[in-house]
Amino acid sequence: MSAANGNKRKRKSRTVPAAKIGLPPGTLVHVGEIKTEQPLISTLAFDQHGIEEQRFDSFAAVSEYWPGHQRLWLNVHGLQDPAILAAIGQRYNLHPLVLEDILNTHQRPKIDDYGDYLFFVARVFEYDPDSRILISDQISIVLGKDFVLSFQERRSGLFEPIRERLRSDHAPLRRNGVDYLVHALLDAVVDRYFVVLDQLGNTAEDLEDAAIGSPTPDLLKTINLVKHDCQLIRRAIWPLRDVLNGLIRDDSAFFTADSKLYLRDIADHTIHVIETLDTVRDLLSDLMDIYLSSVSNRLNLQVRILTVLTTIFLPATLIAGIFGMNFEHMPIIGRSGGFYLALGMMAVIALGMAVIFWRRNWLKA
Amino acid sequence: MSAANGNKRKRKSRTVPAAKIGLPPGTLVHVGEIKTEQPLISTLAFDQHGIEEQRFDSFAAVSEYWPGHQRLWLNVHGLQDPAILAAIGQRYNLHPLVLEDILNTHQRPKIDDYGDYLFFVARVFEYDPDSRILISDQISIVLGKDFVLSFQERRSGLFEPIRERLRSDHAPLRRNGVDYLVHALLDAVVDRYFVVLDQLGNTAEDLEDAAIGSPTPDLLKTINLVKHDCQLIRRAIWPLRDVLNGLIRDDSAFFTADSKLYLRDIADHTIHVIETLDTVRDLLSDLMDIYLSSVSNRLNLQVRILTVLTTIFLPATLIAGIFGMNFEHMPIIGRSGGFYLALGMMAVIALGMAVIFWRRNWLKA
Amino acid sequence: MSAANGNKRKRKSRTVPAAKIGLPPGTLVHVGEIKTEQPLISTLAFDQHGIEEQRFDSFAAVSEYWPGHQRLWLNVHGLQDPAILAAIGQRYNLHPLVLEDILNTHQRPKIDDYGDYLFFVARVFEYDPDSRILISDQISIVLGKDFVLSFQERRSGLFEPIRERLRSDHAPLRRNGVDYLVHALLDAVVDRYFVVLDQLGNTAEDLEDAAIGSPTPDLLKTINLVKHDCQLIRRAIWPLRDVLNGLIRDDSAFFTADSKLYLRDIADHTIHVIETLDTVRDLLSDLMDIYLSSVSNRLNLQVRILTVLTTIFLPATLIAGIFGMNFEHMPIIGRSGGFYLALGMMAVIALGMAVIFWRRNWLKA
Amino acid sequence: MSAANGNKRKRKSRTVPAAKIGLPPGTLVHVGEIKTEQPLISTLAFDQHGIEEQRFDSFAAVSEYWPGHQRLWLNVHGLQDPAILAAIGQRYNLHPLVLEDILNTHQRPKIDDYGDYLFFVARVFEYDPDSRILISDQISIVLGKDFVLSFQERRSGLFEPIRERLRSDHAPLRRNGVDYLVHALLDAVVDRYFVVLDQLGNTAEDLEDAAIGSPTPDLLKTINLVKHDCQLIRRAIWPLRDVLNGLIRDDSAFFTADSKLYLRDIADHTIHVIETLDTVRDLLSDLMDIYLSSVSNRLNLQVRILTVLTTIFLPATLIAGIFGMNFEHMPIIGRSGGFYLALGMMAVIALGMAVIFWRRNWLKA
Amino acid sequence: MSAANGNKRKRKSRTVPAAKIGLPPGTLVHVGEIKTEQPLISTLAFDQHGIEEQRFDSFAAVSEYWPGHQRLWLNVHGLQDPAILAAIGQRYNLHPLVLEDILNTHQRPKIDDYGDYLFFVARVFEYDPDSRILISDQISIVLGKDFVLSFQERRSGLFEPIRERLRSDHAPLRRNGVDYLVHALLDAVVDRYFVVLDQLGNTAEDLEDAAIGSPTPDLLKTINLVKHDCQLIRRAIWPLRDVLNGLIRDDSAFFTADSKLYLRDIADHTIHVIETLDTVRDLLSDLMDIYLSSVSNRLNLQVRILTVLTTIFLPATLIAGIFGMNFEHMPIIGRSGGFYLALGMMAVIALGMAVIFWRRNWLKA
Repeated sequence: MSAANGNKRKRKSRTVPAAKIGLPPGTLVHVGEIKTEQPLISTLAFDQHGIEEQRFDSFAAVSEYWPGHQRLWLNVHGLQDPAILAAIGQRYNLHPLVLEDILNTHQRPKIDDYGDYLFFVARVFEYDPDSRILISDQISIVLGKDFVLSFQERRSGLFEPIRERLRSDHAPLRRNGVDYLVHALLDAVVDRYFVVLDQLGNTAEDLEDAAIGSPTPDLLKTINLVKHDCQLIRRAIWPLRDVLNGLIRDDSAFFTADSKLYLRDIADHTIHVIETLDTVRDLLSDLMDIYLSSVSNRLNLQVRILTVLTTIFLPATLIAGIFGMNFEHMPIIGRSGGFYLALGMMAVIALGMAVIFWRRNWLKA
Repeated sequence: MSAANGNKRKRKSRTVPAAKIGLPPGTLVHVGEIKTEQPLISTLAFDQHGIEEQRFDSFAAVSEYWPGHQRLWLNVHGLQDPAILAAIGQRYNLHPLVLEDILNTHQRPKIDDYGDYLFFVARVFEYDPDSRILISDQISIVLGKDFVLSFQERRSGLFEPIRERLRSDHAPLRRNGVDYLVHALLDAVVDRYFVVLDQLGNTAEDLEDAAIGSPTPDLLKTINLVKHDCQLIRRAIWPLRDVLNGLIRDDSAFFTADSKLYLRDIADHTIHVIETLDTVRDLLSDLMDIYLSSVSNRLNLQVRILTVLTTIFLPATLIAGIFGMNFEHMPIIGRSGGFYLALGMMAVIALGMAVIFWRRNWLKA
Repeated sequence: MSAANGNKRKRKSRTVPAAKIGLPPGTLVHVGEIKTEQPLISTLAFDQHGIEEQRFDSFAAVSEYWPGHQRLWLNVHGLQDPAILAAIGQRYNLHPLVLEDILNTHQRPKIDDYGDYLFFVARVFEYDPDSRILISDQISIVLGKDFVLSFQERRSGLFEPIRERLRSDHAPLRRNGVDYLVHALLDAVVDRYFVVLDQLGNTAEDLEDAAIGSPTPDLLKTINLVKHDCQLIRRAIWPLRDVLNGLIRDDSAFFTADSKLYLRDIADHTIHVIETLDTVRDLLSDLMDIYLSSVSNRLNLQVRILTVLTTIFLPATLIAGIFGMNFEHMPIIGRSGGFYLALGMMAVIALGMAVIFWRRNWLKA
Repeated sequence: MSAANGNKRKRKSRTVPAAKIGLPPGTLVHVGEIKTEQPLISTLAFDQHGIEEQRFDSFAAVSEYWPGHQRLWLNVHGLQDPAILAAIGQRYNLHPLVLEDILNTHQRPKIDDYGDYLFFVARVFEYDPDSRILISDQISIVLGKDFVLSFQERRSGLFEPIRERLRSDHAPLRRNGVDYLVHALLDAVVDRYFVVLDQLGNTAEDLEDAAIGSPTPDLLKTINLVKHDCQLIRRAIWPLRDVLNGLIRDDSAFFTADSKLYLRDIADHTIHVIETLDTVRDLLSDLMDIYLSSVSNRLNLQVRILTVLTTIFLPATLIAGIFGMNFEHMPIIGRSGGFYLALGMMAVIALGMAVIFWRRNWLKA
Repeated sequence: MSAANGNKRKRKSRTVPAAKIGLPPGTLVHVGEIKTEQPLISTLAFDQHGIEEQRFDSFAAVSEYWPGHQRLWLNVHGLQDPAILAAIGQRYNLHPLVLEDILNTHQRPKIDDYGDYLFFVARVFEYDPDSRILISDQISIVLGKDFVLSFQERRSGLFEPIRERLRSDHAPLRRNGVDYLVHALLDAVVDRYFVVLDQLGNTAEDLEDAAIGSPTPDLLKTINLVKHDCQLIRRAIWPLRDVLNGLIRDDSAFFTADSKLYLRDIADHTIHVIETLDTVRDLLSDLMDIYLSSVSNRLNLQVRILTVLTTIFLPATLIAGIFGMNFEHMPIIGRSGGFYLALGMMAVIALGMAVIFWRRNWLKA
């Protein structure tokens, strides 16, 4: 939803772009930034006896390919070519709304039961702590009887460990059905949140230190941006929890009782993500108050120093004024060292006051 | 609810105007501002085989007209003439409360099931970012077995793209029933929210920049006005979500299972609108704190400059005082360049201090 | 709950007065201020064929009176005489708790189903924008099979328009049953809220202007009082909504399906009242922050002016000091216009600084 | 929970004291402060025909006593002797957890259904507005088929009016069953809340006046203490509401339908208590902001006075400086009244400024 | 979750460490800090006739051991050796997810019903008030038909009192089933919360005193840390309440009706913990405001002192200026004690002002 373009970030979260307003639903137009150069279709057919991996970059090649194993996982990176989507939709008999939701990558996480298949939308994030840019990708998953289709906007390596596990002969992923594979995909998605949360948490703590220590006007915008990022993540993880709970309670035929145990585990993780997120958000909310009063405090400290300086000069100025009076009879005036005596008095008093203020820490900004 | 009159906006949201209090329910009086010059009735009869469009501006003409196609969409722009409403109500057998709700354009979005037809009220907004005026229109829709009646306060072009789609021969809108047409109307209404939200979001970001950069007292009122606008939109979209969810869960005969899939899609959009709105509202809530402390901060920065100036003058004034003392024996006093030496000392010290404060950025307001 | 006594308002909302604590429930003691001089009982018997109106001020006269028409509406203004209540209670067979609740005018709005009749308690407000006093009256209504009893603390003219409508021969009120009359009474009660809300909204906006423009310490107490008034109204309208929704969902025999349509309309209005109230409350909550920082801001603006004045005097004082030095060789000193030259220098510098500060708006409080 | 010891109050609300941790549940140890000198057991046997009152201070005497009337109310003041409890528990066949809950006087209000009897725990408060000490007592009630056991920590006179009513021959309390007596006890408990709330409300208003008028550092702690007291009361009344609602909905045999009408009345009262409490809490929450800014405001007012004084001295000092310059040709210098003319100028300017500042109210702290 | 390492605490609450991401679920890797040196397995077999205690530190010894009594409680301290866990899992037929959850000590408290056994996760805290470090341990409990397995990260003595009670011949723990033992374990866990809460409450009050009395910048971080600790505890106790309520409502065969009475008692305690926690949290939330304004207040008090000092010097400086004027005819000037008279005037005025400011308390920082 938020993406890096140059060093200016905007808090836009437009879902239906102006260009699409008025078009009939079901029109296949890719909505979102083009995030990868070339779409890549990779298939992984597997069952207990073996796996077969293929990579395609054109649509025709895929439609001719018919894998030999029982279960198929087809993954698409890059969504800018609606033709590929349309072909996949035709082959797997997907509803036009499903295809539209896959292409319009501003969906809210959800699960829709279309009878023959389940359609999931989830959202995965990547956070760059240095530039403080949060990149969001939509992950769409279709779970059929013996196939899983997954769609990603960018090549992120998110599902690489799962592929690795599938390549191992005795992996439970090979033995179990496609529902177990979907569980693994969702697990990978939720695990990714913890990484992002860790980074956001660290950023929040850095901001806290900066707000207390050296507040700058930019900090306020940064705090608001990170707060906004937390909100984005929350809006992505919150419906995911509902999706998972819906799956667990549901008596659909797509998930076995044992797979549901594992889904329950992921659901627990999402609650944990939400709780951690709320802690970060609370800290960020406090940060603004801390920043604002820290700025005001620094300024007041500086004004205090200046006022201390003024106060230190006061006695000296008074002494100069006293010896500037025009009385005919004044002490010391006639002495040869009188002038220096006066200067000495000024210096002693000023130094004495400086020491007192120094000890009281009133000279520290 | 809020409307533009001159450059003074009031936060009124009166629902039942004083003039109507005490009248029996069912009395047809148009409540609201007159927003269009001349009521316009346009009919669009359609089925798979063709469409027939007509425009009327008098009531008699409409009641005599009997279109040839299966399904009818009758749209009314401008509600200031209760007679037209009364005639439509009689012909389509509408309950007096329905007619009253259409005319009293301060309704909360809702859906009422009257058995023979469903009655929807929705609210659509237009936002002018320059004058920061939010204009709200009530959209009333009656869905019968084979007809759709829609009522708008102003000619807004909101439904024009739908008319365009109906004119196309192979459009799904032509093939499907009137429930699908209602879905298209609601979709157009919800899509309009995204446009307004985008504008409000931009306004909020502009206000943020202004609050941090150049806070002026007007800003506070503007922030409160935009906040109030968000509230108005929220109060319009929130019940719309309930309306849609009610339709989806409901087992009424008005919507087919397939149309409900599309309604679910719109319901998802309304949640998205609400979430985006909440983000804008959170930003606006923070803005007030930011503005208030920004104002206080600017003032303190200015006081700091003044205090720095005072401090810079202190040593010079002391030196003048010292050489103004009346000691008989004083150094330099007798020298010819003594006076300029003293002035030089003053200048050097003052400049030195100015440089120090400049480097510490204490002279920047 | 809150009432006007002199110009001092207290935020009391005592429900069970100390005097009543320990008494057995059902003891008939009027709890509340005596708000009218003389109780007035007015009856209005009606059916489709005609109406018959009577006014009584003594209890005996009422009990002897037997109206000729099918349906009866008996209204009581003024509750200070428990004897009247007791007599009515006996004649209409009311439960002791009902009579107690009518007399103890600190009830929460509610509906109690006693089998033979329904008992409603609602609360109606009147607001005086000048003195900012909110007066609250309890409206108790008993709905039986063919009679309606209504009890008010004061003569307010609240139900006068309904009486007027009943006097018209073809009014729906005459044709329909007593349930429709109760709907009309409740409608009048809810309509009254909009009037009060409008006044409160205007008051809140006036307070906003005052808080930004000319904050005075009294404002804080006024803000808190208006906030408190909003709370009182909210506590009265919130349960009323529940009461209405309860009636709509309920399958009691007291309301016909058609009357329920009208109740749904009133329920929509109560939601609108609550939403409008919340907007006012939000504004009031912000107002306190605005007021507090506005006060602090004004003070700081004044301190800035003073500091500017100090700064303007600094160079002049330095110049005077410089020419007060006792150097033997000083320029200008000996010239005849030297003194005025020095004064001129002072004036020019001071004026120059004043102009600079004036242009920067630093001299505006 | 909170109690008076000297003039130092602690915000402790420990439930299970360290001494009890690790003990098996059911161990009878009195947990709480000993609040009365000598336990007192009073019995009141009654039915329609008469009552019989007895007072005991030793356990043996009670167990031998067998009253002649149908229904028995046994009340215990003072819980420091577990032996009495154990004996009562044995005679009335109470579960060990009930006895433990009665003795451990830090229970949350609740109702437990033990089949043969209902066990209620409620909490009653006493507030001393002068010392601002809130004393809390646990009231435990056991309702059996024909007996009521009530347990209080202190002799408070809370139930005295009920005893008085029982002594009257025609009291409904005598005619009705023990469920009606329990209703009367609970009514007395809830009525007590209104007294405490009135006192807390007055205290909050006094604090408001103090916060606006004369803020002192102690005020902050007092505000927090009263806030904490509100919290304690809220935590006691909130579950009580649930208890009552549970009883009303429940179809247990302990309460007749008519008694439930009366319970509903008490439940309404508890909601009123909660609402009033929330109003007080809101006021207290605002108070802290008001106090904090009031303190800061006072300080700024004082700094303004000091700055005004500085400003008033500036012109006089400048005039002195001007006439202290060493020009050879200066006006007035040579005149005999010149000195006084200068002093006059100083005085006139200073007075003029003082008048200006006085009129602007800038000299008021 | 939070642990002591050196004197730097981090607010991390990572659940799934980066190292585990991508691993298949069920992989046994201990996740968490190693908190004890050497794992310790202790068994306690018991029934009404006797008990038998054993301690093991190697895995082989445990698997060979077969206790003679009916019921077994096996406790494991220290989880760094997955082999032990795997062996126990095999012997008691535990699901891989259970073993994984025991080892990954960042679980949310929960209860999972695996048919043959119940699996509980709870969390217990220890708080060091001096270093303000909150240590958290995960307690995992497996309840089978006749065995209880409990797993702790560290040797904490938490369950020692329960062991002590089991050793007593007539303890209810010996007579009752293993469900009663689990109740005792959970009771010990919840009791421990009260200890921690007491310490946190005291810490919060200390912080309150510090915030009002002597605010230092460190305080802000400490407040945030304690707030964060409260959050951690809340996140641990909140699901525990749900767990207990689930058990009470559930009709599983693991708990007898009587044991459920005792569970209800613990559930009441958890609500009490949550309420107390919320009170502490509210205090902490206020603390930040108090601290921030306290800091600003102190600074302003210091600036006031400095301004008072400046004001005291003003008249003296003016007097010196006056007598430094060069009028030819000035009073006192020629007198011998004139100089001292002027100094006296200065001293008297300065002292008088000092006394006035002293009395007004304006010299107190």
